[in-house]
Amino acid sequence: MQNRRTDRGSFFPVFWKVDSHYPLMDFHKDCNLSQPEDVAIYAEGKYNVKLDGKLFEGTPTTINVPAGQHRINVKVFNQASVPTIYVKGKTVVSDSSWLLTFEDKEWIDETGKTSDVSATKWLNAGSWNFNSPTNLPSQFKLPVVSQSAVSTTANSTSRLIDFGKETFGFVKLHGVKGSGAMTLYYGESKEEALSKDGAVTLDRLQFSNVSKQDSTMPLSKAFRYVNVVMEPTLNLDSVSMLYEYADVKDRGSFKCSDEEINRIYDVAKYTLHLATREFFIDGIKRDRWVWSGDAYQSYLMNYYLFFDSPTVERTMAALRGKDPVTGHINTIMDYTFYWFLGIYDYYLYTGDKSFIKNFYPRMQSMMEYVLGRRNKDGLLQGLPGDWIFIDWANGLSKKGEVSFEQMLFARSLETMALCADIVNDDRGKTTYTKLSDDLKKKLFSLYWNSSKHALVHSRVDGKQTGNVTRYANMFGIFFNYFNDAQKQEVKQHVLLNDSIQKITTPYMHFYELEALCAMGEQDYVLKQMKDYWGGMLNLGATSFWEEYNPTKKGAEHYAMYGREFGKSLCHAWGASPIYLLGKYYLGVKPTAAGYATYTIEPKLGGLQWMQGEVPTPAGNIQVYCSTTQMKVKGAAGKGLLSFQSKTKPICKEGVIEAKGGNNYTLMIEPDKAYTVRYKAK
Amino acid sequence: MQNRRTDRGSFFPVFWKVDSHYPLMDFHKDCNLSQPEDVAIYAEGKYNVKLDGKLFEGTPTTINVPAGQHRINVKVFNQASVPTIYVKGKTVVSDSSWLLTFEDKEWIDETGKTSDVSATKWLNAGSWNFNSPTNLPSQFKLPVVSQSAVSTTANSTSRLIDFGKETFGFVKLHGVKGSGAMTLYYGESKEEALSKDGAVTLDRLQFSNVSKQDSTMPLSKAFRYVNVVMEPTLNLDSVSMLYEYADVKDRGSFKCSDEEINRIYDVAKYTLHLATREFFIDGIKRDRWVWSGDAYQSYLMNYYLFFDSPTVERTMAALRGKDPVTGHINTIMDYTFYWFLGIYDYYLYTGDKSFIKNFYPRMQSMMEYVLGRRNKDGLLQGLPGDWIFIDWANGLSKKGEVSFEQMLFARSLETMALCADIVNDDRGKTTYTKLSDDLKKKLFSLYWNSSKHALVHSRVDGKQTGNVTRYANMFGIFFNYFNDAQKQEVKQHVLLNDSIQKITTPYMHFYELEALCAMGEQDYVLKQMKDYWGGMLNLGATSFWEEYNPTKKGAEHYAMYGREFGKSLCHAWGASPIYLLGKYYLGVKPTAAGYATYTIEPKLGGLQWMQGEVPTPAGNIQVYCSTTQMKVKGAAGKGLLSFQSKTKPICKEGVIEAKGGNNYTLMIEPDKAYTVRYKAK
Repeated sequence: MQNRRTDRGSFFPVFWKVDSHYPLMDFHKDCNLSQPEDVAIYAEGKYNVKLDGKLFEGTPTTINVPAGQHRINVKVFNQASVPTIYVKGKTVVSDSSWLLTFEDKEWIDETGKTSDVSATKWLNAGSWNFNSPTNLPSQFKLPVVSQSAVSTTANSTSRLIDFGKETFGFVKLHGVKGSGAMTLYYGESKEEALSKDGAVTLDRLQFSNVSKQDSTMPLSKAFRYVNVVMEPTLNLDSVSMLYEYADVKDRGSFKCSDEEINRIYDVAKYTLHLATREFFIDGIKRDRWVWSGDAYQSYLMNYYLFFDSPTVERTMAALRGKDPVTGHINTIMDYTFYWFLGIYDYYLYTGDKSFIKNFYPRMQSMMEYVLGRRNKDGLLQGLPGDWIFIDWANGLSKKGEVSFEQMLFARSLETMALCADIVNDDRGKTTYTKLSDDLKKKLFSLYWNSSKHALVHSRVDGKQTGNVTRYANMFGIFFNYFNDAQKQEVKQHVLLNDSIQKITTPYMHFYELEALCAMGEQDYVLKQMKDYWGGMLNLGATSFWEEYNPTKKGAEHYAMYGREFGKSLCHAWGASPIYLLGKYYLGVKPTAAGYATYTIEPKLGGLQWMQGEVPTPAGNIQVYCSTTQMKVKGAAGKGLLSFQSKTKPICKEGVIEAKGGNNYTLMIEPDKAYTVRYKAK
Repeated sequence: MQNRRTDRGSFFPVFWKVDSHYPLMDFHKDCNLSQPEDVAIYAEGKYNVKLDGKLFEGTPTTINVPAGQHRINVKVFNQASVPTIYVKGKTVVSDSSWLLTFEDKEWIDETGKTSDVSATKWLNAGSWNFNSPTNLPSQFKLPVVSQSAVSTTANSTSRLIDFGKETFGFVKLHGVKGSGAMTLYYGESKEEALSKDGAVTLDRLQFSNVSKQDSTMPLSKAFRYVNVVMEPTLNLDSVSMLYEYADVKDRGSFKCSDEEINRIYDVAKYTLHLATREFFIDGIKRDRWVWSGDAYQSYLMNYYLFFDSPTVERTMAALRGKDPVTGHINTIMDYTFYWFLGIYDYYLYTGDKSFIKNFYPRMQSMMEYVLGRRNKDGLLQGLPGDWIFIDWANGLSKKGEVSFEQMLFARSLETMALCADIVNDDRGKTTYTKLSDDLKKKLFSLYWNSSKHALVHSRVDGKQTGNVTRYANMFGIFFNYFNDAQKQEVKQHVLLNDSIQKITTPYMHFYELEALCAMGEQDYVLKQMKDYWGGMLNLGATSFWEEYNPTKKGAEHYAMYGREFGKSLCHAWGASPIYLLGKYYLGVKPTAAGYATYTIEPKLGGLQWMQGEVPTPAGNIQVYCSTTQMKVKGAAGKGLLSFQSKTKPICKEGVIEAKGGNNYTLMIEPDKAYTVRYKAK
């Protein structure tokens, strides 16, 4: 995945460290059979098989396992791709009950005796849907489906093909005839495809006396337009494409009375689909890489759309890589912290502890690395090799100790404490709790400026800078680090203050709008969404962009990184309406791990009605809400519908509790439909 | 290498952790050209090329580098095998002047500007003799040469082929006819080849209606005999082999008046040749693995025979693997320490600091691991996962804190201090020196037993055990940890004391005889060599064994590890006479790194005459010595011939200095021949 980006036909891989798998792996399974059984064994790699410690001769493809208690070991070597096994008996099959090690700590002495103390550490084997011996994990490819162009503009030496919207896949040429050179210039915009010098991706081909040849490009690309430029000695019939996609299903949905919001939701959904591949990547033209800060937002959107856990786990595992830690994740300090935060959310939404149990040692070593880089005041500032990213924002200072980084650091330490608790590391829990408590205190003692009613952006040389930015202040709200008075101050003096530097990326708009939603500003946020995402749609966007600055004009919008068409026009972080509409309008969120308990707090934010579904580990939660009626149906956990009504609400299926003022709640039992008649404020 | 062992046809890899290479590598070279030049670029893997930070389009095979100062980057991705490049210009070529990184710490901001602080760490690229684009490092194979059998014993369904001596390579069948099953049983002994159930290695083949087919086995094996057993429906003309060898040349030599010693030297040489392959391995039948304790002895023998530095470096690098350290090298505590000692010796013999400079960080992390496993008394005892090996010796206790391990630990800390000095790590030098000094003091305060006149074997529960073994005591002599009185006590009460458990492996005989030689017991050691190695030759050995116990009879000698033919009959650690004869009889050893200074102290040890050569980085040192005459010719450094004579010695080419008693010295200038007339004591 990290090696499929190209730039002007050049291979363009990531710049950070890439780890490889352990090439030698020992898998084992303990089983207790009531009947003997034949067990077929396949492996990707050279392998051997043991039964109860005794090696079979050669490389058996089937072994007979007698009745009773037995241990089967399969040891596989594969340097080129990950060692894997496929085992198929009547009861003994390759599944997640197998354990593995890459380091046996057991040896045999000169008399043939096995050492009496084994310190071998066994981990849970990964397992997925490779359900036949010919279905090799190393050969995994996403599915494709053929799609036709919407229009073609042709002249004698070129064809400009428009696929109607942003898409991704393998271009297919039909009926090429003749000899000569051909270049395919890809464009997310028409301007890019038509710019022979500016198009970021291209394919250069050479044909020699072909007649009616079809060719499919070897590497998938992101584009809406393809400009095929060829020598006059060449001709071609038509161009189509194979759309490549991750087969994840929409479980969540949203529809409402505002057609523009519906279009925004649909384009956000399509944007997230495009950027969800083997892993959650940033953008499909560029970088096609797994970036932790980008992926973190995809996880959250995923919980409101696909609820696809394997993609989250794969992405978090890929980001972390192997020990030793020699730098921040993606080299970016903030991105290390988003990795921790992603684990917290994963547990909260899915209730699955297995990732934490397998990865806790790598969480510890990652945090050790961070702790080892604190300065004498216990704060983090950029050391050589640390990229302080925060956001793409003109002139943003990265100097000294940035408050935003300390806040993410504190949240990461809280995550460590939570995970320590899950894996029963009592000492770790105490340590991490103390560290996060101390750091949270420092956040206020060192950065809060009461005359500015906000946290300042940074300290330089031990002194507060006067600069106030939105970043730490908006996170402080939904991290719940501020008290109520501080929240109001921050809202007025930072979030709703136009003199504070504006955000121009959907990336940070995600958090800005989340902070405002968390404070009940759904009406304001709905307008912002229509302005900002609606603004992109008005410019013809068919997927959401990496950055959008409404003050720019025409093709200026496509420039970035000092390049005319440097901007990515399909970037996962552009899809945040999925998350905001599910969590803060439909109002569904877990309050205990895996939706054991959850709340539904519908907020119309000015809409006449809305309806949708939010996925949970065991079924969807359904919500319909108009100004006079709500219909909800819960999933497996215990839900709490919470709302305001100007009149006394009525529900036949449950007992509504009045909470004072206009506030009411209703307990939502699993799998039961409720209708509430009420009057929105 | 670690994956080519088979056992009864089963794949039998190492059990410890195997690391893979970093799959993504950035190579660069800064050059200053007086003329522009075309530079051809080849890589194993997907790659891109930059000139002065600017990416070339596509995958260029030739670039033009203008005159002046330029930087060329080639970035290569290869998961299956190590990323490599071959660059060929007029002056710009791929050599060891290139630097590489697997972790760029430089990024580009949204305006296209490169980050101002790069923390990228560049390492020296490895370089070897792959001198054409088709000569791929990943396809490297040792050379082979065809060899014929010495005799064949045939009957209708089998052929017993004898190659006359232990050998290694690919068996080739000539003129196979018919259909049916054939099995090749390999034997280092005739008994093993004839034992269908006991032969450790075999090949099972199936032929279907072939006529005069030649077949070469895909995997090389160790054997003297091959027993070809086939169904009566098969026939074959003859069997030969392709002998596979590392093309390292003998630079050292030894010849003397004792024909048995000459045979021992020749068989030792052959043994070391067989066990010197891509790396120094333990034995050619078994384990075919790189073991640090075994390799350590091969390094030392190598300095007196091949002086092949690449094999030493490769072996040390392979043993260390990557961070993080999760166990001892080969899981064995003593083997971790031999790794450190090997680096010390490598520097002493070759004078090459490059390995130390590249590997110092991994030396530090390896030592951190060890230091982290000390107990409250600062000593090491076996923790779960630590194999305390020492030697194959019946009933040897590994409990508690074994003195031998502390002694190797102390020597390893001394090595760290030495290397810290070489890389200018002043703090490290101070720390490691203090740690080794403290530990050496403890060795005597805790383990020296004056009534036993020796170091005891171990402490258990904080108390000395009464047990005395040879291990720590013999190392203490040539590490020079004992004072002269202690050396004499140890010699009498341990080394020459038959009631102390005897050594039955050539492995520990190496050190025992070295200790005795270091104390001037060359006469005694010569007899030991004739007894022990001569004993193996008398039993028909054509290479030296993993273990030899003279009290055993017949085929009993071949058993080990609870298996009838479990013993390896060609084990590198059997070849120590190469080292002992070069260092303690010819008497040549470096006294400063890389033979900048060295001594020659010939000791006949009862021989009438001896002559030989000892390789150094710049040429061989030649020594001839009889009871009345010595002829020496030095290499590049400053030598000192040191000897005893009953008469006043005479030399025309230099000035002999009398040192009192019968002791004399003569300075040996580079490349000059000296003849000394004298009379041996």
